Amino acid sequence: MSITKQSVVASFLPEKTMPGKTAEAFAPSNIALCKYWGKRDVELNLPINASLSISLGELGSRTKITPSETGDQVYLNGVLQSEGSSFARKVIAFIDLFRRDLDQPVKVETNNNIPTAAGLASSASGFAALMLAINDFYSFDLDQKVLSAFARIGSGSASRSIYQGFVQWNKGEQEDGMDSCAEPLAVDWPGFRIGLLKVATGAKKIDSRSGMQRTVESADLYQSWPAQAEKDLNTIKHAIAEQNMSLLGQTAEQNALSMHATMIASWPPLLYWQPESVAAMHRVWELRASGVEIYLTMDAGPNLKLLFDAKNEAAVREAFPELTDMDLVAPFG
Amino acid sequence: MSITKQSVVASFLPEKTMPGKTAEAFAPSNIALCKYWGKRDVELNLPINASLSISLGELGSRTKITPSETGDQVYLNGVLQSEGSSFARKVIAFIDLFRRDLDQPVKVETNNNIPTAAGLASSASGFAALMLAINDFYSFDLDQKVLSAFARIGSGSASRSIYQGFVQWNKGEQEDGMDSCAEPLAVDWPGFRIGLLKVATGAKKIDSRSGMQRTVESADLYQSWPAQAEKDLNTIKHAIAEQNMSLLGQTAEQNALSMHATMIASWPPLLYWQPESVAAMHRVWELRASGVEIYLTMDAGPNLKLLFDAKNEAAVREAFPELTDMDLVAPFG
Repeated sequence: MSITKQSVVASFLPEKTMPGKTAEAFAPSNIALCKYWGKRDVELNLPINASLSISLGELGSRTKITPSETGDQVYLNGVLQSEGSSFARKVIAFIDLFRRDLDQPVKVETNNNIPTAAGLASSASGFAALMLAINDFYSFDLDQKVLSAFARIGSGSASRSIYQGFVQWNKGEQEDGMDSCAEPLAVDWPGFRIGLLKVATGAKKIDSRSGMQRTVESADLYQSWPAQAEKDLNTIKHAIAEQNMSLLGQTAEQNALSMHATMIASWPPLLYWQPESVAAMHRVWELRASGVEIYLTMDAGPNLKLLFDAKNEAAVREAFPELTDMDLVAPFG
Repeated sequence: MSITKQSVVASFLPEKTMPGKTAEAFAPSNIALCKYWGKRDVELNLPINASLSISLGELGSRTKITPSETGDQVYLNGVLQSEGSSFARKVIAFIDLFRRDLDQPVKVETNNNIPTAAGLASSASGFAALMLAINDFYSFDLDQKVLSAFARIGSGSASRSIYQGFVQWNKGEQEDGMDSCAEPLAVDWPGFRIGLLKVATGAKKIDSRSGMQRTVESADLYQSWPAQAEKDLNTIKHAIAEQNMSLLGQTAEQNALSMHATMIASWPPLLYWQPESVAAMHRVWELRASGVEIYLTMDAGPNLKLLFDAKNEAAVREAFPELTDMDLVAPFG
């Protein structure tokens, strides 16, 4: 019998959950430099490979939980979500892991301040902020590693959004997954810059959860992914320690493109790229060929994230005039 | 000491090459359904994996060799090529393998009747036709397997263009590569159709020879390619035997995309796709989602080749009005 998320969570909680009091929490978005791609356990979101990300400072999700008089209510960016909506169902199901048989409806208000133009997924910051708010709401006083592991049960990459800066999510070995949690790397890199380049709109047709599963099941090339990811993660850690943008950028870009390669090699083929994505990729490579050190990374969607040093910001802005101030992130302030 | 192409070729030729007499030969283009990607020997173009193609009937290269009074001359589509041009140098270097120390200049005239709109590589049909013409010119009377192996020394995929129909190129085991030659599969498939969809122009920046090498050397995902190619080849042979278009199309498409995936996972990244390529790929998938059985394959360039059954020709023409009669190929007449 495989372990359920309910049983894992319960083993860290008091015997009964007591009624909660208004709580609010923030968690940043994060962008993986070494990607999470593939699960060894679907129930607990346990990854096949370790991953490493950079959190986006003040860009992320803020979540407030208050006791409700009128049943569970879920707001997203100020708009009440219908009970049957995918968003509301996911939030309430996650809360139920912690609320258990306590009869106390809640009102959950989530606000994302990620520029809508960025095309960033909000499930990582969303589940991390929700987890932090739940911890406070029910006064669980769970420690950071447990919070990261529990956020992971909501959405894998949420484990990393518990922290700021560079964050490593260890894949873990334990059956209950409690060692599959993130930890911050204690290093600042003030010149590190990220550009959020949105090139295409429209909801993606295949969510990353399904895409991941399809890749693991149907792409022969995926067999080479776990070893590459492990190697890339070590290289990126080394690059971070040396503040070596060339090494970090090359490794992160190849890692992201290799992840997309495993999707492209799936059946049916999984291509998140739109024509505009490829045009933007070629633009990045042309800029780099012209001598500006810039790298790209991409998640399971059509948009690009640009990685570069502050000294190249003017050149990047000139080449990508569509980047607004909001789209340029300095993760270390 | 590794074997040279000169020594391999010489071992099958008479002691001296005697002066030649005008000869002319034709060889078809071919499109790989299971791709050739990666060399185990660069000197002899020995592949890491076996491959399987379909020849394009009357579309290909016609090459005429005549004794020349005025030194070596190379014509391509009626135009004299300068001595230092890449094309002329390759042709003369290949002829020199067979001419050896015979002092007889030649005039080589190659004409490709591949629709220029098709964006097909001509090195496969070109070297196959050249090999056939050389065999006739010098009256070598080499057998088909040897001709295929020698054409392979000119360009790997030329080994397959010696034959019409479905053709398998065995990877071979011998050090001299003489068992790395193609053989035709004795099967007709009258309803088999190919659409040559050109979506982007401009010479590709990285030739496939270099691209292949870069992939083998830098893409971790390439490690999974040889086993996939072997499996795909067997599946495609099975599909051909059953005339099962679904199985053939799915396998060929996944095989081609997996090859591109290995390029995308290389460093620097190797993306032959242009925005128009991705737009066309999505169009193919939308047409297929609408119920028309159509598949795509792509070589080391931006263009698509469509695979479908004759019964779907009207639907394919309607969805891709840019396909002219010249772009639609019925390989079995």
